[in-house]
Amino acid sequence: MSVTAAAGFRAAGVVAGLKPSGKSDVALVVNEGPQHSAAAVFTSNRCKANPVLWSERTIVDGTLTAVVLNSGGANCYNGPEGFQTTHASAELVAELTGGQAFDVAVCSTGLIGQPLDRPILEAGIRAAHAQLSPDGGPAAAEAIMTTDTVAKQAVVQGGAGSRGPAGEAEERSGAPGVAGEPGKNWVVGGMAKGAGMLAPALATMLVVITTDAAADAATLDAALRAATKTTFDRLDTDGCMSTNDTVVLMASGASGITPAQDELTAAVTTVCADLAEQLWHDAEGAHHDIAIEITGAASEDDAVEVARAVARSNLFKAAVFGNDPNWGRVLAAVGTTQAAFEPEKIDISMNGVKVCRAGGTRFGEPSTSVDLTGRDVHVLVELNAGSSAATILTSDLTHDYVHENSAYST
Amino acid sequence: MSVTAAAGFRAAGVVAGLKPSGKSDVALVVNEGPQHSAAAVFTSNRCKANPVLWSERTIVDGTLTAVVLNSGGANCYNGPEGFQTTHASAELVAELTGGQAFDVAVCSTGLIGQPLDRPILEAGIRAAHAQLSPDGGPAAAEAIMTTDTVAKQAVVQGGAGSRGPAGEAEERSGAPGVAGEPGKNWVVGGMAKGAGMLAPALATMLVVITTDAAADAATLDAALRAATKTTFDRLDTDGCMSTNDTVVLMASGASGITPAQDELTAAVTTVCADLAEQLWHDAEGAHHDIAIEITGAASEDDAVEVARAVARSNLFKAAVFGNDPNWGRVLAAVGTTQAAFEPEKIDISMNGVKVCRAGGTRFGEPSTSVDLTGRDVHVLVELNAGSSAATILTSDLTHDYVHENSAYST
Repeated sequence: MSVTAAAGFRAAGVVAGLKPSGKSDVALVVNEGPQHSAAAVFTSNRCKANPVLWSERTIVDGTLTAVVLNSGGANCYNGPEGFQTTHASAELVAELTGGQAFDVAVCSTGLIGQPLDRPILEAGIRAAHAQLSPDGGPAAAEAIMTTDTVAKQAVVQGGAGSRGPAGEAEERSGAPGVAGEPGKNWVVGGMAKGAGMLAPALATMLVVITTDAAADAATLDAALRAATKTTFDRLDTDGCMSTNDTVVLMASGASGITPAQDELTAAVTTVCADLAEQLWHDAEGAHHDIAIEITGAASEDDAVEVARAVARSNLFKAAVFGNDPNWGRVLAAVGTTQAAFEPEKIDISMNGVKVCRAGGTRFGEPSTSVDLTGRDVHVLVELNAGSSAATILTSDLTHDYVHENSAYST
Repeated sequence: MSVTAAAGFRAAGVVAGLKPSGKSDVALVVNEGPQHSAAAVFTSNRCKANPVLWSERTIVDGTLTAVVLNSGGANCYNGPEGFQTTHASAELVAELTGGQAFDVAVCSTGLIGQPLDRPILEAGIRAAHAQLSPDGGPAAAEAIMTTDTVAKQAVVQGGAGSRGPAGEAEERSGAPGVAGEPGKNWVVGGMAKGAGMLAPALATMLVVITTDAAADAATLDAALRAATKTTFDRLDTDGCMSTNDTVVLMASGASGITPAQDELTAAVTTVCADLAEQLWHDAEGAHHDIAIEITGAASEDDAVEVARAVARSNLFKAAVFGNDPNWGRVLAAVGTTQAAFEPEKIDISMNGVKVCRAGGTRFGEPSTSVDLTGRDVHVLVELNAGSSAATILTSDLTHDYVHENSAYST
């Protein structure tokens, strides 16, 4: 049910004709209230697409009534005409839904530098508006796909009393996405597309999350920033940062329940983690899903820096593709960072086999004991320099990745 | 003639048996003086191989009598035994040549984390010593190859009077490498192996440069650092930094000529630039040699940062492999940097066609006008933010790169 699991939201996804493939390419998500509070985070790329430039302004007052999204064109670096198309699409949504253009966020994904056909987009928006439905979440999730092979959706129930760390007591996607019943419960649901970190792949990550909890914009913003920091921000499939990434969180308040900040943060984090895992498993051309866990770091920032350096080593990623437990390439990547560590104290394990002990000064297990033939690969780097930890999720470097990204635009 | 083009040097390359392929794998370069001044630069990777840890100490006094090099094993992260092997090899060279172990630099290249067979290496060193010859440069250059498809050598004549910018008046490799005649002329020659920047690919860059000019260690050091900063440091084939990279410069003084600092720097820079170009053209699996030129930067550091960001974008590199002039991926990489620029002022040209004007706000030439089918690709990014410039040399991301690096160690 994704973005329509929460009460107060309607959505639709339609074929406008922006994609040559003829698949659906325009999605609309409308918050029918009674509240319209919202928060959003965007790519940190300094070259931003027109919809990002627009949506950054709309979120300033913490209010959104709708998000309109299109695949089939990034609407980025195509001149003033492109920004006007973004503006026009927000105006049209406002006109159709009886709101204000500045309360409509816009997201686009596709090729950079191409014009986005305004008449086609506008016709798609009208069609999507006509099909808005409280069951429209799945259709919306499909309409934002580009190189994705599956639509990504997640739902969690909030309000089930006190709970442990994020996610532990939550239902995950796959569980029925029951809409929150007003006065009884609240729900967080979301959809995502793309393959990368929050500042990720040019495939672009777009995420819309909705809740029927009552929450002001500041509470939503705190929940969203905390959630993305440990989920989408820790996904780094190919080190490339998009011009279009956007994550929007909207609250309708339709459940009549106002959860505590930590409750809301936990539920949003669970949805983000679930969607991030789905993006990870569907990364372009990947044959292995690689989790790089750093422990014993002097700080969490150090752990993230080291994990990201490994995740961005093409040599390491190519070795994993070849089922080769080449831990020397892990170590060489660690050595490029500024993190606190002493080389001769580092232990490296691959899929549970400690192949490098104390930076090679003590004998590790033979690399031949490591089995990398499965899809899941776990690399553990013990820095032995402190007590902080972090995990980055990445992919291997494969022929399919090269093929997909050498043939994408032509 | 590479390292034996300069008078006062003898070299050899032999088959020791470290490489399963049975190709030559141990090289020795000996400086017979009368001077023995030297300089060296090393990888900035914090995880350093044993020969780097050793050679960093030997260069402190600015004196080297010999460099011994092996392929077939990086001698990195294999414990105390590995460092002892490096030490033992320097001791053996010193014993054979009548010098001090601390005046012998050691370089290794190959797999990390594997023991390096000391008896085989020592037998190779003895054989190489027995074959030392003033014509041994080419054999030495062959013995340090790993994934290289051709040996890299370069020679320039110094002392031809005043000259323009580095290289313009110099002879390049391919010209006969005439040994300098004492009292008349001086020569700089060199050999290299690998595929990457100075802090480059795990394939490891090893470079030995010799000259029969007379120069003290400080002059050599200044020349070498100036030369590498604009040559090997600007080569970035796959963004991966080696644990073993070493560049050594040795002077014999056998020509009897003491060139001025700028003359020596120019000659050394020419040799380094020539070798860097050869490394670029032989990068692992590359189908395109891509020069990324940044102009109009606020500073040279900005230009290098921007060029390197583009050079490390897998999406851009895969697009070039597919002959796809996807300038959006260039722009997205530029946007990840901290360099001074305004997005709407950037122009991008590919192979001479300006495909992006003023950040897409004015119409560029159609991408279909760009021909990327040839080996050489030139990307020009005009930041229009200042007057500094820099060029980074890189490669495309190809199936052959993935294949070579997924199958290297197993």
